[in-house]
Amino acid sequence: MNRHVVVREIERADPDVIAALGEQGTATVHEAIGARGFAGPELRPIQHGVRLAGSAVTVSSHPGDNLMVHAAVEVCRPGDVLVVTSTAPSTHGGFGELLATSLLARGVRALVTDAGVRDTAELRDLGFAVWSQHVSVQGTVKATPGSVNVPVVLGHQPVAPGDVVCADDDGVVIVARHEAAWALERARERVVREEASRSRLAAGELGLDFYGLRAKLDELGVEYR
Amino acid sequence: MNRHVVVREIERADPDVIAALGEQGTATVHEAIGARGFAGPELRPIQHGVRLAGSAVTVSSHPGDNLMVHAAVEVCRPGDVLVVTSTAPSTHGGFGELLATSLLARGVRALVTDAGVRDTAELRDLGFAVWSQHVSVQGTVKATPGSVNVPVVLGHQPVAPGDVVCADDDGVVIVARHEAAWALERARERVVREEASRSRLAAGELGLDFYGLRAKLDELGVEYR
Amino acid sequence: MNRHVVVREIERADPDVIAALGEQGTATVHEAIGARGFAGPELRPIQHGVRLAGSAVTVSSHPGDNLMVHAAVEVCRPGDVLVVTSTAPSTHGGFGELLATSLLARGVRALVTDAGVRDTAELRDLGFAVWSQHVSVQGTVKATPGSVNVPVVLGHQPVAPGDVVCADDDGVVIVARHEAAWALERARERVVREEASRSRLAAGELGLDFYGLRAKLDELGVEYR
Amino acid sequence: MNRHVVVREIERADPDVIAALGEQGTATVHEAIGARGFAGPELRPIQHGVRLAGSAVTVSSHPGDNLMVHAAVEVCRPGDVLVVTSTAPSTHGGFGELLATSLLARGVRALVTDAGVRDTAELRDLGFAVWSQHVSVQGTVKATPGSVNVPVVLGHQPVAPGDVVCADDDGVVIVARHEAAWALERARERVVREEASRSRLAAGELGLDFYGLRAKLDELGVEYR
Amino acid sequence: MNRHVVVREIERADPDVIAALGEQGTATVHEAIGARGFAGPELRPIQHGVRLAGSAVTVSSHPGDNLMVHAAVEVCRPGDVLVVTSTAPSTHGGFGELLATSLLARGVRALVTDAGVRDTAELRDLGFAVWSQHVSVQGTVKATPGSVNVPVVLGHQPVAPGDVVCADDDGVVIVARHEAAWALERARERVVREEASRSRLAAGELGLDFYGLRAKLDELGVEYR
Amino acid sequence: MNRHVVVREIERADPDVIAALGEQGTATVHEAIGARGFAGPELRPIQHGVRLAGSAVTVSSHPGDNLMVHAAVEVCRPGDVLVVTSTAPSTHGGFGELLATSLLARGVRALVTDAGVRDTAELRDLGFAVWSQHVSVQGTVKATPGSVNVPVVLGHQPVAPGDVVCADDDGVVIVARHEAAWALERARERVVREEASRSRLAAGELGLDFYGLRAKLDELGVEYR
Repeated sequence: MNRHVVVREIERADPDVIAALGEQGTATVHEAIGARGFAGPELRPIQHGVRLAGSAVTVSSHPGDNLMVHAAVEVCRPGDVLVVTSTAPSTHGGFGELLATSLLARGVRALVTDAGVRDTAELRDLGFAVWSQHVSVQGTVKATPGSVNVPVVLGHQPVAPGDVVCADDDGVVIVARHEAAWALERARERVVREEASRSRLAAGELGLDFYGLRAKLDELGVEYR
Repeated sequence: MNRHVVVREIERADPDVIAALGEQGTATVHEAIGARGFAGPELRPIQHGVRLAGSAVTVSSHPGDNLMVHAAVEVCRPGDVLVVTSTAPSTHGGFGELLATSLLARGVRALVTDAGVRDTAELRDLGFAVWSQHVSVQGTVKATPGSVNVPVVLGHQPVAPGDVVCADDDGVVIVARHEAAWALERARERVVREEASRSRLAAGELGLDFYGLRAKLDELGVEYR
Repeated sequence: MNRHVVVREIERADPDVIAALGEQGTATVHEAIGARGFAGPELRPIQHGVRLAGSAVTVSSHPGDNLMVHAAVEVCRPGDVLVVTSTAPSTHGGFGELLATSLLARGVRALVTDAGVRDTAELRDLGFAVWSQHVSVQGTVKATPGSVNVPVVLGHQPVAPGDVVCADDDGVVIVARHEAAWALERARERVVREEASRSRLAAGELGLDFYGLRAKLDELGVEYR
Repeated sequence: MNRHVVVREIERADPDVIAALGEQGTATVHEAIGARGFAGPELRPIQHGVRLAGSAVTVSSHPGDNLMVHAAVEVCRPGDVLVVTSTAPSTHGGFGELLATSLLARGVRALVTDAGVRDTAELRDLGFAVWSQHVSVQGTVKATPGSVNVPVVLGHQPVAPGDVVCADDDGVVIVARHEAAWALERARERVVREEASRSRLAAGELGLDFYGLRAKLDELGVEYR
Repeated sequence: MNRHVVVREIERADPDVIAALGEQGTATVHEAIGARGFAGPELRPIQHGVRLAGSAVTVSSHPGDNLMVHAAVEVCRPGDVLVVTSTAPSTHGGFGELLATSLLARGVRALVTDAGVRDTAELRDLGFAVWSQHVSVQGTVKATPGSVNVPVVLGHQPVAPGDVVCADDDGVVIVARHEAAWALERARERVVREEASRSRLAAGELGLDFYGLRAKLDELGVEYR
Repeated sequence: MNRHVVVREIERADPDVIAALGEQGTATVHEAIGARGFAGPELRPIQHGVRLAGSAVTVSSHPGDNLMVHAAVEVCRPGDVLVVTSTAPSTHGGFGELLATSLLARGVRALVTDAGVRDTAELRDLGFAVWSQHVSVQGTVKATPGSVNVPVVLGHQPVAPGDVVCADDDGVVIVARHEAAWALERARERVVREEASRSRLAAGELGLDFYGLRAKLDELGVEYR
């Protein structure tokens, strides 16, 4: 029951849906699916201006040990995002340029991790995107077993293999695989609504009137002076 | 006594003084007024290279609730800086592109907050400047009353409505409204003094000699070897 | 025994070795010397893309007091890196543009500190590189004695005067002075090995096969599904 | 799909199994089930020396809002443990003496939360046990919807309604409901093994010999001097 | 304007009111005055079970320097609480047994500080109560000027000299001096109301019914299953 | 050079000196030796009221791996204190009741660690004292090499094997082995001085007069009002 496994085959969402989700931005997707899926403000990008989505290949690893990250590379496919979690808090830079080179060769261009990364300048040069909790030169050993493609918790968020990982400058949002198409639809509706709102707000109309908040303020006893 | 209020009219400092303070840099202003006013190292910019000042429109809001931010937009004027504080620690991204669009339409181009923001890529594109404690896609509800233009605490610093908010890459410094002209005068004196110092230091003269510190080291028992 | 001292003369490593170490990158150097020397993930650069090495001139200072930093300037030589530590945690921006100007006049172009810095925009403009734990406008007094060129602890790492400080986007790594030549040799060997690995990985070969990890996974009981 | 729900009826594990798990201690249970289930070192008890287990009634609530905690009371049964999570980090003391009184009246004697509690002196007097991330007098509003008895993430750990919450001075460990009996069996085996180990270690025998670690040290190249 | 001052005489609230506020508990007082005044969850007691109130004698001191704490002792009176703040974050244990002995001789039996304390075992033995952010043996110098009895910020809360400091196991709450009598009245009303609530909740009545929350849940769209 | 070693024999300070240092309290020892040696405010005791000193047996271990702790037990002697450090930050509870039982059998009654411990209730019952940075049930593997009795950094403090570890409710202070006798002498002088001060302060004399601080305040420009 607590045996360590590598699951080779996982189900993924529709590639077109994933690509389209990647263009929406994490804040939009997060709101669209009911304010769920945020991995938390601790996961920060090492680059500016990258916005993407991909299928989660998940890794549950021992802190300070990247053995299972190596095992995960083999089961990645083009368009995947590697999601590396530690079973206890870790700052180790267990991921760097060589692993990125290996992943790029398989069509994977992003990593998300609750631990650390290193070679950040090289990773930016390679165009390999990373969201991590730490930057650290402290490498890892390859000594302890773990699992690939099992359910994990990333920051404050559960992630199942094949879930859609959306990431940009605001952070990382996870969309459940079977909700991906619905999420995209909801996100697009939201973008349309926001576009309309944006025009009105840009023209000087107030959110107070726009969202009908004046009555609410009054009802809540907020007094104007 | 604990009623929630929105104060529509506040007094502001002289616009020319505010504009001139905005050019001095926060470190200079901070020193000029006696090492006071710093909101703390936790408030960081989401952009590089912006230096500005404006009049504080303050918001006291419930964590995870941006109702009062909407109420505040209406009372903002060109040149104001919105100062949003939470009554308890919050990471929520209760401010994003739409609110920025609305504020830009009113001539407001900066936000300072002890909570979080989202749509950071869009905010940078819009040229709307932000200093915040967090970046988070986690949005807010619009359900709980609060106040606009009441005294608040931002980080480690009290802020009254109409105080001058100075901000740049080093962080946020608050100048009391009635001290603004005096602060500018002091800051300018300091810049002149520093310019003189800079020339001498650049020429290789030592601060040890310059500031008369050799005698002090000797008196304090620091021994040269 | 607890007297405060300024040690004027320290031994330094070979300048050519230092310069060459500065080109290797901290992650490479750190691995090369046996995964030692990392000052910890809390020390972050205020700029992107700078990679360098220099001889440590160490400062042990009282929090909120930069008297000893001024004392240290005099004993710096071209190619040195100033290492400023506090005897207790401090966020103070006890270092800014004027001290940088003074150091640049002496051929020093980098600071590493477990406290804070200010004037970050100006420092970037000057081309003076900084790795610090905080950014803060909060300046310091010049009132309390300390020491220059004594052994200190920087983050999680002991530093002796004359040790080689390597720094880049990944952080700060300390190489003991007498190990510098050996470290360079090891780093170069590592770069050669990594170059070979990179080619094979870029061609699609797997680390699993490359590093012989399949047998290890099997021995550790990791099951493939 | 993102509708808020209160699920009245949940399945629970066998009460005898739960009671027996409560006597094992969290460290034992955690190891027994394969080093899984720990909610993380941030969740600390407000009392010393309490060790218990109960069925999780889960609450997903908005930060600074305890409306759903009130809704949860009704669906609690004797022996349950209330698990209150926030959808974003919160320090609010949204739980105090009155809610504890209400829960005690229903046979519930413990709370676990990633936010804060207050009335800690009174809670200790009442014999109501709490593990929380914060202590704060800052109360909450009752304004925002959430859910009761849905899957949540507590610290670093997913919790489903009816899972077994084990807690003591070391923290909080979650056992999946369907694994409870197995976990107890494994924990008991472990206790027996540890009792044997304890006797031998107390008699001076070494873990090095006991666990056969000398060969491992040798194989790993650790040198004795 | 930025001169450092020691204000000898301050106004204090009515001693009977202060004593009575001290018995209410911080959570009650905090709610009674409109959820204001909390100094934040970082200020923790070094003892259990002490509940008190007193008049604030405020100290604004340089980090790592307790010169002004010595100056403050002289202006303290029986029943005062010393409130020591740092102008930048500090962990220093700038307060210990000797200062407590001196304060006890003047009838002061509590300290509240955003920095650190030491001699905690001795302080507990002396019956001197402390709420602090840190415990640290790191002492201080007596070298830098500051002020006594000026407005300060303690954690997240402004404190004026003579304000009433309420403290217990839940933390520290500040009541403005001129609001003290009103706060006591409100707190007593609240205690009466809570006593009534407690009886009903202890008898098994639900807060859901008690506070009329069922209609609210329905209106917010929370669905029962 | 980066080989892992276990050093069996280390030099220790005079046992009588160590015992006497253990009675002084960490704050006294810290001041006595020139405000040096503090391991930092993050290391906290799991018990109240224990004050002791012992010789450091140091362990440098990989995060999440306690193999080297087992190796260290063998080289401990009565009166030693085990000092366990991680090569990167770790919260793991890599030490619990069984290791404590083993150490107690060898006359060791305390552990100091920058990682975590578990079985805290049992450790308190056993009378085994612990100062740690975390409490966590998360155990460790025994897979990675490290070293015993090499120089390490504990919190902010270098520790050499055989150094004297002093610990009490205020935290942990390290005294270099060859300074132990001198430290004791200095500490005793300090205690005598403090005893005299205590009597005078308890009698109501002021530190302001006592330490001659009035002149200093005047010279620093502090104004009385």
